[in-house]
Amino acid sequence: MFSFEVIAKSSESRARAGVIETSHGIVETPIFMPVGTLGSVKSVTPEELVEAGAQIILGNTYHLYLRPGCDIISRFAGLHRFINWRKPILTDSGGFQVFSLAKLAKLSDDGVTFQSHIDGSKHLLSPEKAMDIQGCLGSDIMMCLDQCIQYPATREQCRAALELTTRWARNCKKAWQNTQNGHNALFGIVQGGMFTDLRRRSAVELMDIDFSGYAIGGLSVGEPVDMMLELADFTLPLLPPTKPRYIMGVGTPENLIELAALGADMFDCVLPTRNARNGQLFTQRGTLNISNSRYKDDTGPLESECRCYTCRNYSRAYLRHLYLARELLAYRLNTVHNIHYYLNFIKRMRAAIVADEFESFRQDFYHKRRKYHERKS
Amino acid sequence: MFSFEVIAKSSESRARAGVIETSHGIVETPIFMPVGTLGSVKSVTPEELVEAGAQIILGNTYHLYLRPGCDIISRFAGLHRFINWRKPILTDSGGFQVFSLAKLAKLSDDGVTFQSHIDGSKHLLSPEKAMDIQGCLGSDIMMCLDQCIQYPATREQCRAALELTTRWARNCKKAWQNTQNGHNALFGIVQGGMFTDLRRRSAVELMDIDFSGYAIGGLSVGEPVDMMLELADFTLPLLPPTKPRYIMGVGTPENLIELAALGADMFDCVLPTRNARNGQLFTQRGTLNISNSRYKDDTGPLESECRCYTCRNYSRAYLRHLYLARELLAYRLNTVHNIHYYLNFIKRMRAAIVADEFESFRQDFYHKRRKYHERKS
Repeated sequence: MFSFEVIAKSSESRARAGVIETSHGIVETPIFMPVGTLGSVKSVTPEELVEAGAQIILGNTYHLYLRPGCDIISRFAGLHRFINWRKPILTDSGGFQVFSLAKLAKLSDDGVTFQSHIDGSKHLLSPEKAMDIQGCLGSDIMMCLDQCIQYPATREQCRAALELTTRWARNCKKAWQNTQNGHNALFGIVQGGMFTDLRRRSAVELMDIDFSGYAIGGLSVGEPVDMMLELADFTLPLLPPTKPRYIMGVGTPENLIELAALGADMFDCVLPTRNARNGQLFTQRGTLNISNSRYKDDTGPLESECRCYTCRNYSRAYLRHLYLARELLAYRLNTVHNIHYYLNFIKRMRAAIVADEFESFRQDFYHKRRKYHERKS
Repeated sequence: MFSFEVIAKSSESRARAGVIETSHGIVETPIFMPVGTLGSVKSVTPEELVEAGAQIILGNTYHLYLRPGCDIISRFAGLHRFINWRKPILTDSGGFQVFSLAKLAKLSDDGVTFQSHIDGSKHLLSPEKAMDIQGCLGSDIMMCLDQCIQYPATREQCRAALELTTRWARNCKKAWQNTQNGHNALFGIVQGGMFTDLRRRSAVELMDIDFSGYAIGGLSVGEPVDMMLELADFTLPLLPPTKPRYIMGVGTPENLIELAALGADMFDCVLPTRNARNGQLFTQRGTLNISNSRYKDDTGPLESECRCYTCRNYSRAYLRHLYLARELLAYRLNTVHNIHYYLNFIKRMRAAIVADEFESFRQDFYHKRRKYHERKS
């Protein structure tokens, strides 16, 4: 079960608001998906995610396939019950991690052979297997196996990767149809590097296969932000307006607002969670580093307007103390705040789209940051 | 404000149930106090502690004095508001950590000079300063500065330590009277090593000074369990029956039940929290190590009778997976369970004392463990 409906469009940009329906409930777009790599959004519980406004989380196929493995997760009839998360889950195909973490052995139409980064064991990830694993995880939104390449890459490298991605996508679609029986969704992933004609070709080929939604992969892989936005600006309008559009692995709050303006509906990124564990907190006025000595006797919350558990109960001085003492609670309280920040930000963005006030929301977003930076300097 | 009342006594042992009243609320004894070394019971929130049944926690004066320091905590008018804990707090005097963590410089009637284990900075901890710091922390139950020595120690070492402890205790009492104005409680700490006559002398000298309650220190410092129990058995009845009796730094569930049988009212120990972070979980059937491969596809909870958040929501297989993957959530879920186990255990023990069924409670406690061990072997 999967559907998508656009319920509002900004008259001043391509921004839009929609509703995705899955068998684990609805997701209001634009949405940000916290990353639960190993079956846990690091340091927080499902209840805390829901309180922060999370509607869908991401699970990493590569990691979960290696640890704990499908045999164990299938005893729980999938990831939802294993990790105690009742809302929708999107799983990546594992391709990205195979290319970034594992030791690669061989790449072919059949799939990719790799060695585990944990114990060196050898595995084949084929389009069919990518579907099998995600099926076993009980994913609500599955992703095609794709070849994601870093920036910079030659035109030839990007062309070869997009061609392989298309061939794999065709096999993924077949395997998905044979095994999932319309139970969930399968998204195609547009590749093509930083070459617009290759991006167009990838999009056209995938649309020809026909997917439940489309992602743009291979962005935020080292290229300048302007280039990332240009490529998204070029590629997003090529995709069917009736299907959700997902920008993978992006990004900062600034990235999110700009990409939403270009018509993107879904985002995922480790930024709020990873940076929380490094002491970097997101606020309306920009980011702050909690280890900064200016906060050492600051009795105020991280952000006075914020209604998250952390801001309602703790001071900057306490958070700084916990962080410097490497207390486990530090990572957790910081993560709760950052996820709340992201989800509250995107929720307000959606409300602005629905009210057709997206441009003033965007201006206000930048205005608050500028004002604060001016005051600081 | 501080009072203590014994409300029930076991007719089959010296076990007793009581109520401590402080300005931050009541504590039902016997009680176990989770340890919040640096202003955080590692990995969990105050709300989780309360849900687990915590009525009072312990803060470490030495650690909090060095980090973040009294100047910062006093901006919050004490530890309660700084760490968001509204119930009672007991603070140790810092002595134990000075002797176990810091580099010692000099010991005298004036106090102890030491170098911080963090940055090597030099400090004097005097009886007066111990009172000052604990006052600044807003402690509900303050502890006298004492000299705790490890096992084994010579009679001469133990005698000298107890004499110094008495002299410091006298100065602590004076400073406490001058600064705290009956606002909270001050406990004396009985020392004397493993020598019964020295323990008696220490108890008598402290009772002569007169404290709100009495702790037995210098136990569980490396001696055999039987010796620890013998010393407690000898010392506890020497202490005034109208005052709370606190065994410091102990211990296992077995220790707690035996010491309660001897008339002890209060306990603290890092065991439930530290062991949780090492994957050791407490259950009615004994301890289990979650990394054990036997749990890898175990869909059941840690303990089926347990009502803690962890047992209500997660399987052993998931907890094992999180632990092996070193996910931060592992430490937290394990800690929630272990603290709940300890507090539920002591709550049921208290109920058994009130119902005058302590002996059958004790037998049942050992019976469950034996049965399980027999079944395992």
